[in-house]
Amino acid sequence: MMMTRFARAALVALLVTTSAPAFADGLVDNVDGFTLDDAGQVVRFTGIVVSDDGHVKKLLAKKDKRPKDGLTYRYDGEGRHLMPGLIDAHGHVIGLGFQALLLDLSDTSSLAEALDRIAKYSAANPDVPWILGRGWNQEKWGLGRYPTAAELDAVTGNRPAFLERVDGHASWANSKAIAAAQVTAKTPTPEGGRVEMANGKPAGVFVDNAQSLVQRVVPQPLPRDYDRALAAAQAILLENGITAIADMGTDMPAWQAFRRAGDLNRLNVRIISYGMGIENMVAIAGPHPTPWLYEDRLRMVGVKLYLDGALGSRGAWLKAPYADAPDQTGLPMLSYSELRNKLVRASMDGFQVAVHAIGDRANQEVLDAIDSVVDRFGGDRRWRIEHAQIVDPADLPRFGKNGIVASMQPVHQTSDWKMATVRMGPDLSPTGRLGGAYAWGSMLRNGAHLAFGSDVPVESPNPFPGIAVAMTRLDAEGQPLGGWIPRERVTREQAIAAFTTGGAYAGFAEDRLGSLTPGKRADFVLLDIDPLTADPETIRNAKVAETWIGGQRAYVRGNTPRPAEETKAVRGANAAPEGR
Amino acid sequence: MMMTRFARAALVALLVTTSAPAFADGLVDNVDGFTLDDAGQVVRFTGIVVSDDGHVKKLLAKKDKRPKDGLTYRYDGEGRHLMPGLIDAHGHVIGLGFQALLLDLSDTSSLAEALDRIAKYSAANPDVPWILGRGWNQEKWGLGRYPTAAELDAVTGNRPAFLERVDGHASWANSKAIAAAQVTAKTPTPEGGRVEMANGKPAGVFVDNAQSLVQRVVPQPLPRDYDRALAAAQAILLENGITAIADMGTDMPAWQAFRRAGDLNRLNVRIISYGMGIENMVAIAGPHPTPWLYEDRLRMVGVKLYLDGALGSRGAWLKAPYADAPDQTGLPMLSYSELRNKLVRASMDGFQVAVHAIGDRANQEVLDAIDSVVDRFGGDRRWRIEHAQIVDPADLPRFGKNGIVASMQPVHQTSDWKMATVRMGPDLSPTGRLGGAYAWGSMLRNGAHLAFGSDVPVESPNPFPGIAVAMTRLDAEGQPLGGWIPRERVTREQAIAAFTTGGAYAGFAEDRLGSLTPGKRADFVLLDIDPLTADPETIRNAKVAETWIGGQRAYVRGNTPRPAEETKAVRGANAAPEGR
Repeated sequence: MMMTRFARAALVALLVTTSAPAFADGLVDNVDGFTLDDAGQVVRFTGIVVSDDGHVKKLLAKKDKRPKDGLTYRYDGEGRHLMPGLIDAHGHVIGLGFQALLLDLSDTSSLAEALDRIAKYSAANPDVPWILGRGWNQEKWGLGRYPTAAELDAVTGNRPAFLERVDGHASWANSKAIAAAQVTAKTPTPEGGRVEMANGKPAGVFVDNAQSLVQRVVPQPLPRDYDRALAAAQAILLENGITAIADMGTDMPAWQAFRRAGDLNRLNVRIISYGMGIENMVAIAGPHPTPWLYEDRLRMVGVKLYLDGALGSRGAWLKAPYADAPDQTGLPMLSYSELRNKLVRASMDGFQVAVHAIGDRANQEVLDAIDSVVDRFGGDRRWRIEHAQIVDPADLPRFGKNGIVASMQPVHQTSDWKMATVRMGPDLSPTGRLGGAYAWGSMLRNGAHLAFGSDVPVESPNPFPGIAVAMTRLDAEGQPLGGWIPRERVTREQAIAAFTTGGAYAGFAEDRLGSLTPGKRADFVLLDIDPLTADPETIRNAKVAETWIGGQRAYVRGNTPRPAEETKAVRGANAAPEGR
Repeated sequence: MMMTRFARAALVALLVTTSAPAFADGLVDNVDGFTLDDAGQVVRFTGIVVSDDGHVKKLLAKKDKRPKDGLTYRYDGEGRHLMPGLIDAHGHVIGLGFQALLLDLSDTSSLAEALDRIAKYSAANPDVPWILGRGWNQEKWGLGRYPTAAELDAVTGNRPAFLERVDGHASWANSKAIAAAQVTAKTPTPEGGRVEMANGKPAGVFVDNAQSLVQRVVPQPLPRDYDRALAAAQAILLENGITAIADMGTDMPAWQAFRRAGDLNRLNVRIISYGMGIENMVAIAGPHPTPWLYEDRLRMVGVKLYLDGALGSRGAWLKAPYADAPDQTGLPMLSYSELRNKLVRASMDGFQVAVHAIGDRANQEVLDAIDSVVDRFGGDRRWRIEHAQIVDPADLPRFGKNGIVASMQPVHQTSDWKMATVRMGPDLSPTGRLGGAYAWGSMLRNGAHLAFGSDVPVESPNPFPGIAVAMTRLDAEGQPLGGWIPRERVTREQAIAAFTTGGAYAGFAEDRLGSLTPGKRADFVLLDIDPLTADPETIRNAKVAETWIGGQRAYVRGNTPRPAEETKAVRGANAAPEGR
């Protein structure tokens, strides 16, 4: 603040009164670099001059003269490929951190394997009062049904256990947990939820809002646990080349953890925060979105609302009944007037709105609600529809109106395509019931703004499989042949844009993030592959060599993470400034 | 952070490579200035060189040469008196702000006057759903009893009204409010509270914890109301020369307001924050006290605990029954083991503990609890006892052990002395029941660390009456003749120390605040009177001419407050840098 103000003046005075060039700049040289410009065109360069405060000062072509004197550092990229830092437009930062700290079942491929994993975790953590974890997916297990409390009892002994499904829309409890929560057949089920039953008793799985029946007796994590989770999440994001992430549903404990990290110079990944519901938005940001904090590392810009659940747990709100459950159309979480009121409440104070909508009916409702308020709340609002997974083909063109941002997660398509066909029926034709499913290509053709993310921890935060999937609509096994609804593929450059400039635009951050343009933050990754020419399989398996944030090196593959420390400015070849 | 780091390097480089003197320093000259040094000795000077980042760089004696070139500003104090900014060691920042925004009854001297004030407020604010305010004091009114709901009904019509007593330990509701809260004779009274009754019905006044019966139905202020309250509080503190204040009981909404102000460069007064109870302390600061934020304008350093209530409402916890209520000994809010557990919980994570203790029994309990934990939590802990009003003379020497800070409010003595004699009986002798009452002199003689504050909004935040009272033990009417228990007076320098260096020490801030010593923040006030020579009555009526924080002018008497804006660096005679 004051220091900065005076210091700026000092720097200006210095530059005027001496002939020293570019005092305190850094240089990253000898790279095969590219960025996308505001028009989505590829711009190539071989060096970046980074200003003292971590912005891109100049991109250098091969023929350009390099600054020689007065550099804070000069870093030799050794010819590696360099691209802008990736932006995850939809993730759950603290959720990722807790996933890393808790029992992780996301890579189990059968119930037996999951039970074995749980038994081992239980034995290894005798002091943990509750066995908590997440990531199971009965679809991936090929189970054809939900797992049961009895199955969980067999490996958890007398300790309560509560394990969240991969999408967060259902949880699996053991008998001890159900008893601790005092849930019986007589317990009323909360609206928007469902308790799976067997033999007239709760069977073990609690869907959507019914999860709260058990959740309320689970010991809450302490602030110090949040701090550990945030540190773990940042380490994982950095090793995946993510330099900024939209946190889709920040509550007060998470926000306080972000602030503590920022205050202690331990916030490195940039977080574009959306308050979890209006209440958190107001309690945190007050009358307006916050300013950018910690040198563009944190801002609360808007609110996250939930309109429906997920497709896997049949929470997605559909226009017609589920093909595999003719008595169900999903679980809407807000009435139309509630949704509309929340749009108005946020917009009147200048907050951006991001609405979770997965089913075709949910998507239609959001589009309707936006239509109904744009007269009153005009200008550049960037209404975000999160997921936009199953859209009625008739509604697709509406995404091109009102400046809507379609915030989508390519890998969901490959995780979901088999299940989606079961839930919705097999009609993939352009006018069919799945004709507007995961319709990235249509979104662009219709003029919507497209932003890609991972929905971490629902999926891995690694953006490179996302880029590969976006180009191919093929999963890791190359299935289905030719890609699922291949007309919805996007080009390589469109996929990269959605993970960089698109994510920045979606978060009102395109003036500072998303591309390596002079004046924006010097956030980039170094790769051993060339993302502009590599085939999709190579991209899918790409590993990040280094991640730089604000002109400082934040991650090096193979290096043990270091404790947070002050940067030491260094000189000479291959002296990189280490970030926080 | 990074900017600052690099910028510091730039400044260093500049100072090394050119011959320009003291670039970006400011100079406040031609003042009759003093500060107290760490030993409590008066140090005099006539000019201050302020560094670019708002610290005192050098104190100049009359004979010292003044820097001439490269100054950011040169300010002519025109011979006025200058002293360190005053530190209020115990206040309630948001409470002060809300007092300024709500109905204020603190200067009413009779029930009739209060009712007239309420009627006028009610008429002037037809849209306010509840009539809310504070500041009444039936003792000051000479009423000899509590006011009633019926009396309030007569001036509030059909709107609910809820008015807090001056000390916050009782509230006065009208019938509509009591009905809205559904309180009847059958409603159980919360532990630690009392509902005043008349004719078998709630009479209108709710004491201590019983206030919650009505409070829970009062509409809560919104975050934007907190922001307005904080702005109002800062304006009032600045005009009283307060440059730093210990906020005694910060909850999450208040902390968020402090952060929003800091983020927007609207936090000017320095706030040393104590979380309201362990829960807020942990939710806000997490595993450790926060660092200093916003250039030493905010830090959460510890926790505020309440052990008892106030003397006026007979909540103070006494060793023997109240003289005027032989069946009552006050309202302890924590058991001994609860208190001790909280001391341990805070101390194990390095948080400072500040315990509200007014009655002699409460003070003994805190002293006992501290004694019982110091073996485990040694080192420099600065256990704070807030108020320490009525201390058993036998317990007074114990304040000199274990590094205890006695955080006391001189003006309370003049507000309370008549009431205290009624509550405790008339024995003022050194071994009498009031022999250790408001015993500032004894605290110093016993080796306790003394810090003075106002308990704003219970009293005015103006520290000058506090200094005068501390020197005289006389109220504004010069009563009682010779001063109340005059052996407990302190010297002028001791009083000033308790409002400057003492307050800084009490908040672990003596390395940066409290005195005008090179390296500390340039926080000071300009006065038209000389606090080192003026008689107490002149001090009591002193008005602050200007208040400077961090070398920037934050308040000028007679000036309309300005909106927050960037400082413009200026040159020339009497060009003062305006602060936030």
